[in-house]
Amino acid sequence: MRSILDNTDMKLHHLGIVVNNVQEASKQYADFRGISYDSLYFEYVKSQRVNICLVQEGSSYVEFIEPVNKYSPVYRFLSSGGGLHHICYEVDDVKEYIIKLKKYTRVIVKPVVGFQNRTITFLYVKSDILGISLVELAEKK
Amino acid sequence: MRSILDNTDMKLHHLGIVVNNVQEASKQYADFRGISYDSLYFEYVKSQRVNICLVQEGSSYVEFIEPVNKYSPVYRFLSSGGGLHHICYEVDDVKEYIIKLKKYTRVIVKPVVGFQNRTITFLYVKSDILGISLVELAEKK
Repeated sequence: MRSILDNTDMKLHHLGIVVNNVQEASKQYADFRGISYDSLYFEYVKSQRVNICLVQEGSSYVEFIEPVNKYSPVYRFLSSGGGLHHICYEVDDVKEYIIKLKKYTRVIVKPVVGFQNRTITFLYVKSDILGISLVELAEKK
Repeated sequence: MRSILDNTDMKLHHLGIVVNNVQEASKQYADFRGISYDSLYFEYVKSQRVNICLVQEGSSYVEFIEPVNKYSPVYRFLSSGGGLHHICYEVDDVKEYIIKLKKYTRVIVKPVVGFQNRTITFLYVKSDILGISLVELAEKK
């Protein structure tokens, strides 16, 4: 049986984890995973006021996120302990998916320029059944 | 620069999400993702007293987990809201990795038979830098 939406271009991109220090966290994670430091990808994402690090895990990534100041959208989450924060999916067209997913989510961060100069958006998941409260969509490059 | 451990056989297997009702959650997730219900994999994992559903996402899975009673190790987590719970890695030899990861983790659930009759273990991550507190290891089949 097919489900409702045709989301064939939607792919799990990363799992976002909010940390106090992205350099320390990602290097410790690389040690833990036996991954070379050279393969860590660091970036400052201006629109979100965060430093991030992407670590490849198969066809997806783990993303460490450090707010640079209290104006970052993840600052409060870090203050209350940080940790597993959101799931990000890559899609061909972010605006199209905001409409497609309207039944399940509402926009909390309108499309902006995010990591790797991609168009990103953050969606709040309406359902309390799923156990996921925050979803990021990132446009394919 | 290489990091410390040779963990080349270690692979991200799934992201575990604790929910109230695994049937409802996984079907809603399938709708949200445009995935066929037929591809959902359900199982009762006796040792953990949980019903699970695995949903494939590229080279990994999302796992929905529902405790069947208060003796399940995730019962308390669900009572305090549920949601993103652990990251599971597949390894060739669970016992070998318990030793390999000793610097970073301590065993909280000793190796038992878990999902798909795999040997699994749960490790508590000692570091508060990583933003990950719970790791599952599952032996390759």
